[in-house]
Amino acid sequence: MHPESMFALWLQADPGSGYLQVVLLISLLSLAVAVLFSRFVIRQDTGTTAMQKISNAIKQGAEAFLRRQYSTISSLAVLLALIIFVGYFFGKGQTTLAIRMTISFVVGSLCSLAAGYFGMWVSIRANIRTASAARSDLNRALQIALRGGAVTGLGVVSLSLLGVGGLFLLFDGLHNPQQVPFQIVAFGFGASFVALFAQLGGGIYTKAADVGADLVGKVEAGIPEDDPRNPAVIADLVGDNVGDCAGRGADLFESTAAENIGAMILGVALLPVFGIYGVLFPLMARAFGLIASIVGVTIVRVKGEEDPMKALNRGYYVTTALAMLGFYIAVRLLLQNNLHLFFAGVIGILTAFLFVYITQYYTEYKYRPVLSIADSAKTGPATVIITGFSVALECTALPVLVISAAILGSYYLGANAGLPGVSPEAAGLYGTAIATMGMLSTAAYILAMDTFGPITDNAGGIIEMSQQPEEIRRRTDRLDAVGNTTKALTKGYAIGSAALAAFLLFSAYIDEVKVHLGWAAERIFTVDIGNVPVFTGALLGAMLVFLFSALAIRAVGKAAQTVIEEVRRQFRSNPGIMQGTSDPDYGVCVDIVTKGALKAMVLPGILPVVGPVAVGVIFRHFAGYNETPVGATSVAALLMVGTIAGILLATMMNNGGGAWDNAKKYVETGKLGGKGSDAHKATVVGDTVGDPFKDTAGPSLHVLIKLLSTITLVAAPLFI
Amino acid sequence: MHPESMFALWLQADPGSGYLQVVLLISLLSLAVAVLFSRFVIRQDTGTTAMQKISNAIKQGAEAFLRRQYSTISSLAVLLALIIFVGYFFGKGQTTLAIRMTISFVVGSLCSLAAGYFGMWVSIRANIRTASAARSDLNRALQIALRGGAVTGLGVVSLSLLGVGGLFLLFDGLHNPQQVPFQIVAFGFGASFVALFAQLGGGIYTKAADVGADLVGKVEAGIPEDDPRNPAVIADLVGDNVGDCAGRGADLFESTAAENIGAMILGVALLPVFGIYGVLFPLMARAFGLIASIVGVTIVRVKGEEDPMKALNRGYYVTTALAMLGFYIAVRLLLQNNLHLFFAGVIGILTAFLFVYITQYYTEYKYRPVLSIADSAKTGPATVIITGFSVALECTALPVLVISAAILGSYYLGANAGLPGVSPEAAGLYGTAIATMGMLSTAAYILAMDTFGPITDNAGGIIEMSQQPEEIRRRTDRLDAVGNTTKALTKGYAIGSAALAAFLLFSAYIDEVKVHLGWAAERIFTVDIGNVPVFTGALLGAMLVFLFSALAIRAVGKAAQTVIEEVRRQFRSNPGIMQGTSDPDYGVCVDIVTKGALKAMVLPGILPVVGPVAVGVIFRHFAGYNETPVGATSVAALLMVGTIAGILLATMMNNGGGAWDNAKKYVETGKLGGKGSDAHKATVVGDTVGDPFKDTAGPSLHVLIKLLSTITLVAAPLFI
Repeated sequence: MHPESMFALWLQADPGSGYLQVVLLISLLSLAVAVLFSRFVIRQDTGTTAMQKISNAIKQGAEAFLRRQYSTISSLAVLLALIIFVGYFFGKGQTTLAIRMTISFVVGSLCSLAAGYFGMWVSIRANIRTASAARSDLNRALQIALRGGAVTGLGVVSLSLLGVGGLFLLFDGLHNPQQVPFQIVAFGFGASFVALFAQLGGGIYTKAADVGADLVGKVEAGIPEDDPRNPAVIADLVGDNVGDCAGRGADLFESTAAENIGAMILGVALLPVFGIYGVLFPLMARAFGLIASIVGVTIVRVKGEEDPMKALNRGYYVTTALAMLGFYIAVRLLLQNNLHLFFAGVIGILTAFLFVYITQYYTEYKYRPVLSIADSAKTGPATVIITGFSVALECTALPVLVISAAILGSYYLGANAGLPGVSPEAAGLYGTAIATMGMLSTAAYILAMDTFGPITDNAGGIIEMSQQPEEIRRRTDRLDAVGNTTKALTKGYAIGSAALAAFLLFSAYIDEVKVHLGWAAERIFTVDIGNVPVFTGALLGAMLVFLFSALAIRAVGKAAQTVIEEVRRQFRSNPGIMQGTSDPDYGVCVDIVTKGALKAMVLPGILPVVGPVAVGVIFRHFAGYNETPVGATSVAALLMVGTIAGILLATMMNNGGGAWDNAKKYVETGKLGGKGSDAHKATVVGDTVGDPFKDTAGPSLHVLIKLLSTITLVAAPLFI
Repeated sequence: MHPESMFALWLQADPGSGYLQVVLLISLLSLAVAVLFSRFVIRQDTGTTAMQKISNAIKQGAEAFLRRQYSTISSLAVLLALIIFVGYFFGKGQTTLAIRMTISFVVGSLCSLAAGYFGMWVSIRANIRTASAARSDLNRALQIALRGGAVTGLGVVSLSLLGVGGLFLLFDGLHNPQQVPFQIVAFGFGASFVALFAQLGGGIYTKAADVGADLVGKVEAGIPEDDPRNPAVIADLVGDNVGDCAGRGADLFESTAAENIGAMILGVALLPVFGIYGVLFPLMARAFGLIASIVGVTIVRVKGEEDPMKALNRGYYVTTALAMLGFYIAVRLLLQNNLHLFFAGVIGILTAFLFVYITQYYTEYKYRPVLSIADSAKTGPATVIITGFSVALECTALPVLVISAAILGSYYLGANAGLPGVSPEAAGLYGTAIATMGMLSTAAYILAMDTFGPITDNAGGIIEMSQQPEEIRRRTDRLDAVGNTTKALTKGYAIGSAALAAFLLFSAYIDEVKVHLGWAAERIFTVDIGNVPVFTGALLGAMLVFLFSALAIRAVGKAAQTVIEEVRRQFRSNPGIMQGTSDPDYGVCVDIVTKGALKAMVLPGILPVVGPVAVGVIFRHFAGYNETPVGATSVAALLMVGTIAGILLATMMNNGGGAWDNAKKYVETGKLGGKGSDAHKATVVGDTVGDPFKDTAGPSLHVLIKLLSTITLVAAPLFI
């Protein structure tokens, strides 16, 4: 018998179960590939003893931070798990729901912690191997860094599929597709909760160390970046790992998880048309995306002396093309070959592309925005900040236009997809969900490129600190520059997908509220922002986002100041450090930043959990003058307008920070007086200001948006 | 016959007409008082020839700018008047409406131009007289500055009452109260349109000059502020007048106008209960506020050596108490002594108080926020910006909480006011309108305090430039410091009232849309932000606010750079300037800034006019799946979420800028090394960055919010 027909027969036996098994199988295989990649990395040469000494210091610092961070996060998560269980068990008296919610939350938290941990585990090992390979072979160095990054990418996406798919199977979602997706929402909440702390803590750590090291090192002492004489340099390198690897890993884990669950909930509304397939489609599309990403990562190689970015782009194009093909197959298999829905997915894939280009326009020094910032350096740091801030505000415009077009386009494609028995609104929303799936189908590859950034950054640091020859430094500098670009691109991509996914999560929340109200699915739940309490909820939502950003940025400023004072103290008390005759005490700086970051992450981390719940619970008691419940509706407005504020502020901070960074790099290429000139000093101030924007507050905001969505999903019963 | 009974009889003859006449009479009397105040100012001594020379240079620069600015604004306004006429005449075929809308728009624009002009006319005359009086008598100087400011305050408020009341009478609103308020909306639009350009152009002018003068003067050349050797110093002093006086005058004119009209429209819904009185109440409350402000201004005098701020505060307390009394009388006369509504007004008055205190907390160097910024100056300009930015983001929280409480409190007071035959929603909205009226009842006094700021600032500049003895300088410095505080307070007040008034204008828009749809007044028009196109409108609204801020800030950066280059050129080509042997060429700097500001104000000024109309017209063609029209609803969401974003960004920029300014002042009192230290230089960078925040983008945003409201009111028929 032909193997294809055997597969077909097996699927026909119990199609839903068959597809779910395919998804789980692909996820397991991808995990296996991740293990192979990590073994490939580990097998590589680890360089000289000097290099190993530095690498070990980074490893120790990173692991010590993660241990302490994870114990803080775990305590908070256990507390929250208890609250969820008690709330659903005693408050609502629903035993099954209480148990399943709690299990989902715990599994989601654990998977998120694991995703962050493994991502960092491999990257603190890939950094030295990339550095070592860079001594002889650029292509080999690139491959080590990218495959190291791919361990995070594949691990994150397959863990999220295994988690969501596994819980779906465990709770017998195949025979109970109406309730089970709602029971899994706590998985997304657990993931977001952990991710927010991981991203915040890591983000504060990395930028406090970076800002501190740069201000005393580059500006005051006049020594280069990553100079071994700088006592904060190890803390800075540790920061790249705990912020950019562990933080971002947890962050993208919760993205994929929350969006999968949201899309499955919307799929419930389409049960009359697609049956269980509409619910499973998001998982299937993502699984095909995993295969596409594996192929993409595998084929990347640098030809001769070409720009490494070109090689990475080739991999991205291949991944995109394969993902589109996979998407088409998934639509054919599961969505009755509905071309409207396929094109909604194509819109998502195109949106990803446009975001990548817009981010490049605003953050590369080939174009007007960054050049205008660099030019304003002629008149000092104040004009650098003013011009940069105006660029930061401006760069929200194009992404919002693209997202608006994508949301509207996919909505109307869905609404006109000709789905019998489904309201155009529900079909339209499913269209936006499909677009989100399209945008996220290449997530594993994007995440691999993202983690590539800190690995090459660290490799450059190790080469610099172990004082390798100039020629090798130039090679790691080239990789590092590519890493900076990929980091900026993926942040644009992450916020774009968060924006596109926003609708999917709002709608999931509204669907859930309707279920709790006992409303029929067709009945329209309006979030009338013209209603006074609802408007107030919206205002509070936007405020929450501003306050959260304030706390995140303040934390960096505070921790950085303690680093600066410590470095100055070491320089003062031990003049041998600057002469290179004695070693600075790296450990004290690592300790200071660790403590500062952990302390500072708690308040901003709790705010988005407590805020929406407080609004929902208090506003529930207000009188409403039409039938929609005031509490739940005000929370919906809080969520939606909070999301809008989050999208804008995050875009502003990510791109603004990137633009300041590259204005400095532009001057460092020798323009406007080059390194050491007044213009350079002015752009260093800009870069420093941009640091907490682009690496602490900005990326945390995009987790915050998801956390708002998932906490409201979990706490919805409280608002009614 | 007792005169009181005569008055009562006269009122009874035609009560509506009687009250309207009282309002117009009080407005005319207040205008007369403004004339008396300006004659009081003009009568004062004009000091030495050296002082007059400087004052004349300021006068010339300011008048030249205003002439050119007004001719640009007028051309744009004429164009817009034509569009309005043609649109309503040919597009809608409504002759009466077309004529009345056009008249309203033209009158509104002219009044706004006049308000700005007269405010500046008197302040460029009060500055030198304040300076001259300060040489002998602090109390006299204070009185001249405050009464000069009161000319603007009284002029603005009475012009707006005369305009709105006069048009209401002209269009026979007393016998046609249902339509006429909607015909007057174009008055508010004209006022906002002019105000946006006045505030933007003036704001760009003043900050470009200020930033330019400070960066080259204080930082590079090391000469004090307002030093006559600085070629940009006259431009800087001119800027205070065209930005803070003319700009703010037009700005507060449109505030009072737009809010009066909005409240009258809400009063239409209450016709069954209060008849015409509910529509006239806003005008009456404002007229009583005028009387209260006149008394307040008149009683201000400094006792001996006390802090001048105390004297101003005494005046404010008296004004507030009288305004509250007047409010009570108005409620008794016109609103059937409904105590619920009176207390809604009290909420508004208390909100004004709280805003004043919150602003002080975030911008004075007695409290944690500013001190933390100053403290971060120890580690250089980058940490000053980071800390300041986190303070700026944070300071949105308390105002939003206060506004939320005020909106909810006054809404529920209104809803429970026991108004027969009125839906609780409509009554609740009227409650928020009453709160707004309460908050704005002291507007004339607040505006007098605001204009007091630039007058004393200029007086200080004239004393400094004419090289008066140290003792006199200290006296004007004291007045100047008070002026800085009052300027910050009134900005907080302005944004607070804009936030409180937001609802009133949304509701007016929705009422207007319902009229155009031919819906019954009771029918609820929902702005369902959970609907995809509506959400997209909301997202675009928030983006519009960010883009507008970007353009405003960029304009300052650009214009400031040209000033800096010109000043450097003068220092280079004429070394005699720094030695004090030859005069710099002030005129060139004035010219550069004039041209730069006028060119730069056009694009950001047109954006908020074109943006909402484009969204409404395009979205009108999208399919909606319930009965609410997609175009009009999306514009409503754009307006509401744009307002939210505007409130937050404006608060952030106003208070953030104020905090940076005062962190610098704190260091200048001798802390952290005092003037000339590295910490001082770092805070000067912060102050400079804050300049376009607090004096260009911030105050323009609050006009922008109103402009969005009024343009949507005028263009509403296009969206259906």
